[in-house]
This record gives sequence, structure tokens and C-alpha cells, in this order.
Amino acid sequence: MLASFVFFVLSRQQLSSAYRPAMIMSSLVVVIAGYHYLRIFSSWHDAYHLVNGVYVPTGQPFNDAYRYVDWLLTVPLLCAELVAVMNLKAGVRGPLMAKLVVAAALMIGLGYPGEVSTDTTTRTVWGLLSTVPFIYILYALWSELSRAAAGESAEVKVLLRNTRLLLLGTWGFYPIAYLMPLMGVSGSNAMISIQVGYSFADIFAKCGYGVMIYAIARAKMAANDEVAEGPALRFA
Amino acid sequence: MLASFVFFVLSRQQLSSAYRPAMIMSSLVVVIAGYHYLRIFSSWHDAYHLVNGVYVPTGQPFNDAYRYVDWLLTVPLLCAELVAVMNLKAGVRGPLMAKLVVAAALMIGLGYPGEVSTDTTTRTVWGLLSTVPFIYILYALWSELSRAAAGESAEVKVLLRNTRLLLLGTWGFYPIAYLMPLMGVSGSNAMISIQVGYSFADIFAKCGYGVMIYAIARAKMAANDEVAEGPALRFA
Repeated sequence: MLASFVFFVLSRQQLSSAYRPAMIMSSLVVVIAGYHYLRIFSSWHDAYHLVNGVYVPTGQPFNDAYRYVDWLLTVPLLCAELVAVMNLKAGVRGPLMAKLVVAAALMIGLGYPGEVSTDTTTRTVWGLLSTVPFIYILYALWSELSRAAAGESAEVKVLLRNTRLLLLGTWGFYPIAYLMPLMGVSGSNAMISIQVGYSFADIFAKCGYGVMIYAIARAKMAANDEVAEGPALRFA
Repeated sequence: MLASFVFFVLSRQQLSSAYRPAMIMSSLVVVIAGYHYLRIFSSWHDAYHLVNGVYVPTGQPFNDAYRYVDWLLTVPLLCAELVAVMNLKAGVRGPLMAKLVVAAALMIGLGYPGEVSTDTTTRTVWGLLSTVPFIYILYALWSELSRAAAGESAEVKVLLRNTRLLLLGTWGFYPIAYLMPLMGVSGSNAMISIQVGYSFADIFAKCGYGVMIYAIARAKMAANDEVAEGPALRFA
């Protein structure tokens, strides 16, 4: 996350200014996530210790809220980032971003009560409620990405198609991790599967996705013969 | 590592934009390594403490995985960085980078099971498997560097030759550290030799190598009468 932050900050200058807001959003996503992962690391470290070769709880609770606060901030940004790189018309972009941001916040907010509950019914009910905005977001991004691909170069088309697949692949991972305790995985195995699952999904959905956004921007620049605006251009 | 990070970030603006991606990769390598060395430091600090003038294990395990996660991320970047500065043709650059990145990941992944094993046979077998991609990478970089030197100025030729030697000298150090436990060095001496060996090799292979890449870029710019694009140009 922190290396991605450095990459997005430094390489935004390889892009023309139209694509920089998307890269700035990418930077925000990974710096927010990097910070929360440091907190998650500490919380995990304090919650379990080694006794006779086995990790046992110390009594300090592991705080899953860091992850949800992270998502509450980063998922709306991830949606906005993709909209920002798509070059939509001004009248379409604003309302779409607003709808996606609200849906993303709802999705995370509704998932949390289920995540922290040990009761499987509670987990199921909140999980299902959270699935409604989840489906809406995926549907909206998927159909907008198809529409955005229409007028683009072959290279951009391939990248947009791969971004759709990345989106589906990584986002599809979260419900699976969430469902672990409902699928008979229990105790420390469930705990570890969820945490490892979320962490891997986050790496692809945040860092990998940001790199795709960068690649889309570079390909669009290449298709339009644009170069990064820098002082050198003033002599062109 | 952290000072190199600052150097690479700041001095990339002394380069023209064609060489900046290589410097961005250098920055990523040392920031990733700097982070992992902080983690290695903490893990080492927690794993041993002083009792009656002798360092003894505390019971907290020393986590060697930090080093391998670091290498898994940085070694592919180090390969890509050298390819990026060599100005290869677009059709050659992509496939070469892809092959090197896969080989680097294989090399690290195959080395790890041997590293964490206390059994010398296991260490030998995984070490040998890991040597196959290791030889391939060195061969590919070595031959590409020879080819790249052909059309360059005398100064660039010297730098490319030195980079080849640095690559061979530093990369050659890792197998020696890895082999320590197989060469009769045992117990705490083996542990310390490995850690000191890897750390020195990392400093030269990441920081020293990044500085060489910077020097190559500067020498190429000088040979082509290029100047860094920057505000100073406005007065030219």
C-alpha cells in the first residue's frame, strides 16, 4: 500500500492534467489503507501471543473496525476514481459519482453489524442488506465501463475490459471472505481466512486497480498523442 | 534505504522524462526495503534479549518472512528498472520485463521453503531449484547489457560494464549467505552470518544499483545533449 502510494504520487507527473485527479484519488486510497493496515497490524500483534508454541488471545480484542473505517473512506474513492478516468460528460459524471459514493457508504455501513456479530443469523441479514448496494455499484460501474469503451482505441478497450474483470474478480472476493463463518469454517481458521482473504482482495482492488487506472490514462494519452504537461512543453 | 529513497525521489527531476520511470522504480525498491528493514529490526529486537551478558531467545520467533516478502516485491522491480533505463525497442522491452519478473518471483518463492527449514537436505533442494531462475536472470541481464552497450558513448559503456560487475558481485553474495548453514557454520554464527550477509548484499544491490542507474541516465543525457525538463529551462 505504501509503495503504491509512492508510485501514484510520483507517476502522476507522467500523465496529462486531465488524468491527474484519478491518480490523486488512487494515492488517497492507498495511503488511507496503508495507515489502517499499520493499525490492523498493531491490533493483531496485541491481540495474540505465543504460549508454548501456540498463538492464544491475550485478552486485548482485535479491532475489525479499522478495516471498515478504511473501506468507508476508500470504497467511495475507488468508485469516483474510475468515473474520473472515464472522461464522461460533465452532466453525467457528477450524478453518477454521487450515487456511487452513497451506495458505497451504505454497503460498508450495512456490512459492519454483521461482521462483528458472532450470531450467524445477524451476519446473514446484514450481509444480505449490504449486498443490495454492492450489486448496484457493480452493475453501474460495469455498464458505464461498457459504454465508455465504445469510442476508445483498441488498447484502451482491452484495458477497460480487464478493469471490469479485475473489479468483478476482486469485489467478488469480499463476499466469499464474509461468508466464511457461514460455510462451516470456524474458530481461528475462520478468523484467519477472513483476514487473509480481505488483505489479498484489498491489494488487488486498491493497488492493482490503481495501476490499471494509470495504464488506462497512459493508453488514452498515447491514442490522443498527448504528452505529460511539464515545463518542457512550453517550447513545443 | 530511506536516504536512498529521498535521493531517488528528489533527483529524478534531474533526469529527462524518459529516464524517470527507472528512478521511480528505484524509489519503490528502497521504500519497500526500508519498511521491511524496520519490521526486521523490530522482530529481531523482540526475539532476543540480554540475560547475564549473553543474548538468548525470548521465545518470540524471529520472522524471516519479512525479507522474502521484501524480495518478492523488490527483485522484479530491480530487473524491470535496468530494462527501463536501457532504452530497448518497445517490442523487446515488454516481453523481456515480463520474463524477468516471472523468473524473479519464482527465484524468491522457491528459495523460501529452504530458508525456513532446519533440514540441510531441504535447504539444498529448494536452494538448487531457486538457482535455475537465478542463473536465467543473470544471463538475460548480462547479455542484454552487453547488447545495450554497443551503440553507447564511452562513458555509458564503462557504466554499463560496472553495472554488470555490481550485479554479479552483489547477486553472487546471496547464494553464499544462503549456503552458510551447509558449509559447517552453525547455530547463532550461521544465523548472524546469514543476516549480516543479506543486509550488506541488499545495500549494494538496491541502493548502489539505483545510484548506478542514475549515473547511466545522466551519462546518456550528456551523450545526447539532453537536459532535465524543469523550470530552469524557461530562461534558456
